[in-house]
Amino acid sequence: MHITPFASEDISVSHIEESAASAELSGASQREARTHRPLRIALFGFGTVGSSVARILVESKPRELDLTHVFNRNVARKRVDWTPPGVVWSDNADEVLASDVDAIVELVGGLDPPGSWVRRALEAGKSVVTANKKLIAYHGVDLERLAAIKGGHLKYGAAVAGGIPVIPGLEQGMAGDRIERIQGILNGTCNFILSQMEGGVEYAAVLAAAQARGYAEADPTEDVGGFDARAKLAILMRLALRVQVDPEEIVPRPITTITAVDFNYARDLGCTIRQVARAEQMGAHLAATVGPMLAPLRSPLAWSQGTENMVIVTGHYGGDVVFSGHGAGGHPTAVAVVSDLLALAHGSRRVEIPSAPASIGTEFEVPHYIRFLVVDRPGIVAAITGALAEERINIRAIVQKPGYPPDALPFVVTVEPCKSSSLKRALERVKGMDCMLVEPLDLQMLE
Amino acid sequence: MHITPFASEDISVSHIEESAASAELSGASQREARTHRPLRIALFGFGTVGSSVARILVESKPRELDLTHVFNRNVARKRVDWTPPGVVWSDNADEVLASDVDAIVELVGGLDPPGSWVRRALEAGKSVVTANKKLIAYHGVDLERLAAIKGGHLKYGAAVAGGIPVIPGLEQGMAGDRIERIQGILNGTCNFILSQMEGGVEYAAVLAAAQARGYAEADPTEDVGGFDARAKLAILMRLALRVQVDPEEIVPRPITTITAVDFNYARDLGCTIRQVARAEQMGAHLAATVGPMLAPLRSPLAWSQGTENMVIVTGHYGGDVVFSGHGAGGHPTAVAVVSDLLALAHGSRRVEIPSAPASIGTEFEVPHYIRFLVVDRPGIVAAITGALAEERINIRAIVQKPGYPPDALPFVVTVEPCKSSSLKRALERVKGMDCMLVEPLDLQMLE
Repeated sequence: MHITPFASEDISVSHIEESAASAELSGASQREARTHRPLRIALFGFGTVGSSVARILVESKPRELDLTHVFNRNVARKRVDWTPPGVVWSDNADEVLASDVDAIVELVGGLDPPGSWVRRALEAGKSVVTANKKLIAYHGVDLERLAAIKGGHLKYGAAVAGGIPVIPGLEQGMAGDRIERIQGILNGTCNFILSQMEGGVEYAAVLAAAQARGYAEADPTEDVGGFDARAKLAILMRLALRVQVDPEEIVPRPITTITAVDFNYARDLGCTIRQVARAEQMGAHLAATVGPMLAPLRSPLAWSQGTENMVIVTGHYGGDVVFSGHGAGGHPTAVAVVSDLLALAHGSRRVEIPSAPASIGTEFEVPHYIRFLVVDRPGIVAAITGALAEERINIRAIVQKPGYPPDALPFVVTVEPCKSSSLKRALERVKGMDCMLVEPLDLQMLE
Repeated sequence: MHITPFASEDISVSHIEESAASAELSGASQREARTHRPLRIALFGFGTVGSSVARILVESKPRELDLTHVFNRNVARKRVDWTPPGVVWSDNADEVLASDVDAIVELVGGLDPPGSWVRRALEAGKSVVTANKKLIAYHGVDLERLAAIKGGHLKYGAAVAGGIPVIPGLEQGMAGDRIERIQGILNGTCNFILSQMEGGVEYAAVLAAAQARGYAEADPTEDVGGFDARAKLAILMRLALRVQVDPEEIVPRPITTITAVDFNYARDLGCTIRQVARAEQMGAHLAATVGPMLAPLRSPLAWSQGTENMVIVTGHYGGDVVFSGHGAGGHPTAVAVVSDLLALAHGSRRVEIPSAPASIGTEFEVPHYIRFLVVDRPGIVAAITGALAEERINIRAIVQKPGYPPDALPFVVTVEPCKSSSLKRALERVKGMDCMLVEPLDLQMLE
């Protein structure tokens, strides 16, 4: 067969596209092929974030991005009149997945059916942008592998801390460090509740206010129980500590046990209380916990107010880097989504950070705050200090503020850094005392 | 001519490499060619940052990166024994530029000769990673264009705020927003000096201490005069506000005029003083200033201590995002450099943020703090308030703290938001009064 230069060009392109080994080149040539046309995008989910994404695309008109499809269940009730006229509104996911879009944006949340849409899109060589922390926490490794094989890309900058570029920062700006610790305020609902409680309001009242303002769900368990934050922590652990963990191994502690009394005592100790998600690599030992903790008032963690998020990344070489801002809400999350789409359109690959499966513990050797609520009688302090002494736990301070009634008397013991397991055994011994009105509350004290 | 599949492969590759129009594909095929070998790197400059980069590469052993050359003037005195045995140490820049390295890391600083090395490396299709804020502030647009034409990449995450991933954050995580304002503490030397002055020490003493600790140069003008910060601000303005500005158009104000008295008065106003670099797009008006400003104690800007850096980016959609951490020093800056190298090795493109040339003004309509130092006599306040009234500037407060001598009496007037030009005219009128011991000091008050 004779070939002309023109024919050779045809052959070269088809050769490249068909070669299984040249996924990278194939991706590049696909991009090349659409150099002069925008990335075609399908939105899956047109709720708060989805409509914010559409709003930004309509207002900012990035020439690289073209919204072509919107999928939602019962899409008719979602339809708006301000999107570009060509947009196809559909409640048929299969139809949208079978279309010629280059990327889908998954904003429905939860493992199923979004997981299967994402998988099918990646199987078809499309790229996926998602804000779905649960899907990424549980299946991120597999989905990334699938994307790499099929030549598409998976991006999830919106899955953790919404509008704060923690994930791009870790991937693109801190991959050169060896990250030793992450501490984050990753759940805006908890931060709103706890920062409001600082003012003296009790949990139930603040929760009701948060629900009224749309900051908390009718069933707030996912947030206040720490399940949302632990999924996000698992994602950050993979990118920062380079470990693949099963989120279920992180046992979260709810913020529901915190009372206004605790904020009073915390303040006397120069602290406030925040829901913190925390992971640390200490030699071979990997620890991760999520729950309410005492944060010093001079720590950045104490600065975050309202629904703000904050992440502190501690690098072996670079020291502490703090990110803070609006971690949730339609517009901030949509910024992360649109930024991921722009990165896709510009062919900006993720920096693949290698990670390995790891098992986690919950033992941090940190100081603890323990609050007791008792019917006052002689011998209580002796019994408690005795139980702590038996576990070789050193007491730092015993604080009893005036003004509380003796039949429901709160007081606090703080202890020097000790293993959580030792403290647990000590508290097991005293929690059965008949003077105890509630189980003792122990919280990690951050330093 | 007959071709076999093998021959067609050859043709397809050479076709791609030779096509001037396919720079993107060509870059991809070059990467493809070195998929199985690491990125070969030459370090230009083996000072604090350069040796930290080498140290991280030796300790972390990223398989994607291979340090092959080190260039330094009088390289013999720089040579260390802990780098890999194969490294070529050279004081001949031409030789290193002519070698087979894939990327050069330019850490020498200044416009010349580093500018010509960077340009020659890019001309040759190599990639460049640099921490050179001056080069990028003055020539970044041209150099990026050159890189794009030749198929290489230019990365400069280390040029602003060292170890804090502000540039990756803006490019990869916030490109979807419309950034309206940037406020930054971009110079660690100034922040060290001013945060130490908070404790009551005078400028000269703190500067001497900073010089002794290596935080300030023997000639500190570049830092305390604001020239370093303005170069960084110009870079951030391009990425955040999407404007190409001539750094020389930003007239910085030095921190040398600040005294311990000003910290005293600032504290009474609920503020502290920081060197802030600030730029804002207000409709068609683009403003940028660098200099000491009053920052409220509850503002993140006031939290930064010592040599820390901080950047607050305000997005139209995402609101405020705060980045803080170690902006300088060998290790933090080296983290940014190594991260950029990893991004190159993974083929992670920059998200090209479009920008257009723009002219800047210095008018922010903000409140001002004005400190006078006078020989006390009747009529001074009347004259000052009269001059302000003529420019229609409203006074917010007049504060005179007790305990200062009448022959060198400091007092402060704060004014409501007003144009800098109006204030300048008012102060022109009073600064010639014979009671004035020094020129009145006016500072922007951030809100």
